[in-house]
Amino acid sequence: MPHDVLAQLTAALGTAVTADAAALDATREDRSGWRSAVAPLALVHAASVDDVQSVLRIAHATGTPVVPRGAGTGLAGGAIASTGAIVLDVSRMDRVLEISEADELAVVEPGVLNGDLNDLLAPLGLWFAPDPASRAISSIGGNIATNAGGLLCAKYGVTRESVLGLQVVLADGRLLRTGHRTVKGVTGYDLTALMTGSEGTLGVIVEATVRLRPAVTGEVVTVAAMFPDVETAAAASAAVTAARLRPAMLELIDAAGLARVAGFLGAAALAGTPLATLAPGETFLLAQTDAAGAAAEAEAIAAIFAGVGGRVSTSTDAASGDRLVAIRRSMHPALASRGQVLIEDVAVPRSRLPEMFRAIERIGAEHGLEIPTLAHAGDGNLHPNFVFDGEPGEVPEHVWAAADAMFREAVALGGTLTGEHGVGVLKRRWLADELGEDSYALQRGIKAVFDPTGILNPGVMFGTDA
Amino acid sequence: MPHDVLAQLTAALGTAVTADAAALDATREDRSGWRSAVAPLALVHAASVDDVQSVLRIAHATGTPVVPRGAGTGLAGGAIASTGAIVLDVSRMDRVLEISEADELAVVEPGVLNGDLNDLLAPLGLWFAPDPASRAISSIGGNIATNAGGLLCAKYGVTRESVLGLQVVLADGRLLRTGHRTVKGVTGYDLTALMTGSEGTLGVIVEATVRLRPAVTGEVVTVAAMFPDVETAAAASAAVTAARLRPAMLELIDAAGLARVAGFLGAAALAGTPLATLAPGETFLLAQTDAAGAAAEAEAIAAIFAGVGGRVSTSTDAASGDRLVAIRRSMHPALASRGQVLIEDVAVPRSRLPEMFRAIERIGAEHGLEIPTLAHAGDGNLHPNFVFDGEPGEVPEHVWAAADAMFREAVALGGTLTGEHGVGVLKRRWLADELGEDSYALQRGIKAVFDPTGILNPGVMFGTDA
Repeated sequence: MPHDVLAQLTAALGTAVTADAAALDATREDRSGWRSAVAPLALVHAASVDDVQSVLRIAHATGTPVVPRGAGTGLAGGAIASTGAIVLDVSRMDRVLEISEADELAVVEPGVLNGDLNDLLAPLGLWFAPDPASRAISSIGGNIATNAGGLLCAKYGVTRESVLGLQVVLADGRLLRTGHRTVKGVTGYDLTALMTGSEGTLGVIVEATVRLRPAVTGEVVTVAAMFPDVETAAAASAAVTAARLRPAMLELIDAAGLARVAGFLGAAALAGTPLATLAPGETFLLAQTDAAGAAAEAEAIAAIFAGVGGRVSTSTDAASGDRLVAIRRSMHPALASRGQVLIEDVAVPRSRLPEMFRAIERIGAEHGLEIPTLAHAGDGNLHPNFVFDGEPGEVPEHVWAAADAMFREAVALGGTLTGEHGVGVLKRRWLADELGEDSYALQRGIKAVFDPTGILNPGVMFGTDA
Repeated sequence: MPHDVLAQLTAALGTAVTADAAALDATREDRSGWRSAVAPLALVHAASVDDVQSVLRIAHATGTPVVPRGAGTGLAGGAIASTGAIVLDVSRMDRVLEISEADELAVVEPGVLNGDLNDLLAPLGLWFAPDPASRAISSIGGNIATNAGGLLCAKYGVTRESVLGLQVVLADGRLLRTGHRTVKGVTGYDLTALMTGSEGTLGVIVEATVRLRPAVTGEVVTVAAMFPDVETAAAASAAVTAARLRPAMLELIDAAGLARVAGFLGAAALAGTPLATLAPGETFLLAQTDAAGAAAEAEAIAAIFAGVGGRVSTSTDAASGDRLVAIRRSMHPALASRGQVLIEDVAVPRSRLPEMFRAIERIGAEHGLEIPTLAHAGDGNLHPNFVFDGEPGEVPEHVWAAADAMFREAVALGGTLTGEHGVGVLKRRWLADELGEDSYALQRGIKAVFDPTGILNPGVMFGTDA
């Protein structure tokens, strides 16, 4: 049967199909640090909707699992090889099919990179708002499949709010259209929102109609501050919200994270920044304001930071602002340069941030792990980074034990085990606990409506760990 | 069997249950002008989640249809009595359970009126953004059940973007929790978005956690203009979008609508407004800008309006601004004062507005109907009002024939038959045409997962007309 599938695929798709060992091997990973135990049966590079439909028709007829994959930048193992599967790579479907200035929308194939679309839009004064940290390397199909978040969500929303409509190839190869070319539209259930964040388990996104916004113009002001400890920084962040201010960006790095960043960037890069003198325990908070009113908003934020004891740096020119933002953006490279990292992704109500930080510290101490943490403080989304020694692609059980304690803490605080990365295979074992039995059963029921034979990304979201 | 149901309800819920003929009769209507042919079996005024669960358990055990109903202000017949049904009225579940300033959210029962919540929030500097024209009289449960739109959606989003989580009583009486107290959260499918706009066909919303925003502060500037015809007004609206401006409000009233409004308000109220001198064919466009930059934005809009031939009035004080907005807000009262009206609700991509206006004129002429039309021009949502003589509660077939032609035109232009009112029973016969066979079948599949015995609002959305 496997050979039969490969033969059918090759007959239908020719050189788009590969069974080359190195190519198959590359699909076993994403950016999570996780590595699938197996290579897939075949890798198909789809170039068109027709290609995707052909693959699904063959998969449906032969009962073969299909793993939709885009740029491969996922952080939850949601698009990696599984046993006997066809990995259906849509990254070559990367055409921007339409940009409508009048209707403020773009129609794109799933493989278009987020950053590439925005490069096209900038000269037109338009903007695709979803802004995951991976935007330069992640594809819009993947942004939608995971309902990607990012740094700007408190002010500009998550990916779902920028998706107007989709074309999706269903499990048996039929092509489904959802949504509209309008901001409003309430005919029937919101299948566009249902598909957004469904991680390839309900269909394969082959086209997206996305909402554009006028580019934000005017001054951008950056305010950074150092606080003596993470609780004070969290309190400063809460005070910004309480003052009814809504900066575009509000990012926090804890002391363990800062130490890594400082070591990675080096003294020269830090000269003139608040990190030039770094006392133990100090925590970093970065706010950025934009659009009309940016200067006044930044001034109010700086006053709040200073009022709770922050050492404040304000920057109104692009160059010094970029140096402050570079501190934030170097967090992941700094960690990745020093061994294995499991990047986690819990979210809690903003008011519970101090408690969550304390819990992370406690869990790190209990499990003998360092957990440098970054937070999108404006929306309560934390990325605790579990740093450990070990083999690439394997997360040791004691790390999972610490992560387990952390997930439970986040859910107990009214939060969630994943704010923006998705469930994938890495977090499926906690899904039912967070959702509860009824929701889990209903979600499996929806899955069965779209994928009655269970060939779409099996093991992702609903699978159980061996 | 009907008596048995009534007896069971009364045993469980006491005086919350009524079979009084006048009370039952009142549930045959909403604000659509439509009237159900039948009264329900019983009306239950639920006061708690327990009450709702009791009703659903009895309905499930006896196979009795349940029609969830809130304030009764729907415009599509989505919450009106049907044969043998229990009308489950949640309007008395009207407590605001929590307002969290720190987390910028409120937890409310479904019967809380949109305007009442905003009255509580205003002194706190917070705001629940969904802004249907009915906000003073419509409930948040109903806003969510229909994914209500309104005047501010192009800038501030539809209801879905303000719903963080729900509690929903399922068809068999179990209580489902969806979503989070956080802006981000991607564990599993987005059941919160699926419930939003599901018109009572998947469950009964008994609690909502809604997102709040900082209240918009600062100057509000109103710019109104008269244009010689609707095409010029639509072009002016398109030019605002093309200039990358995003007013909070951008509303258009066509000539037939203006004539009604002018007659209704009278000369005294119109003195000093652009409607004081009204030439045949003239069309009204109203923009309102807010927040930082409001004045500059309004100036740019006024220049655009003048540039395409508009007679422009700009108002920076609240009193004269209110007089301009009153013109817009009096459209529906003006129509309702003069006979029967079917308020329709198509949406088209903004660039197709001129074509849609021409089509409405043509359809009116062909069917011998006057169709005064109002549009949320900023998001392409039109409310063509079919004015006719006849009995209250009955829409004559020739009016439906005209509406049918209009729905088909909107869909052909890339739009939808309902932008914000919902499908209800009034538009169910066009649903499958717009969705297509595959989407329709998938949506019925989802319905069956949540409501396997088909007791939740049967006939709404998916029913067929007799």
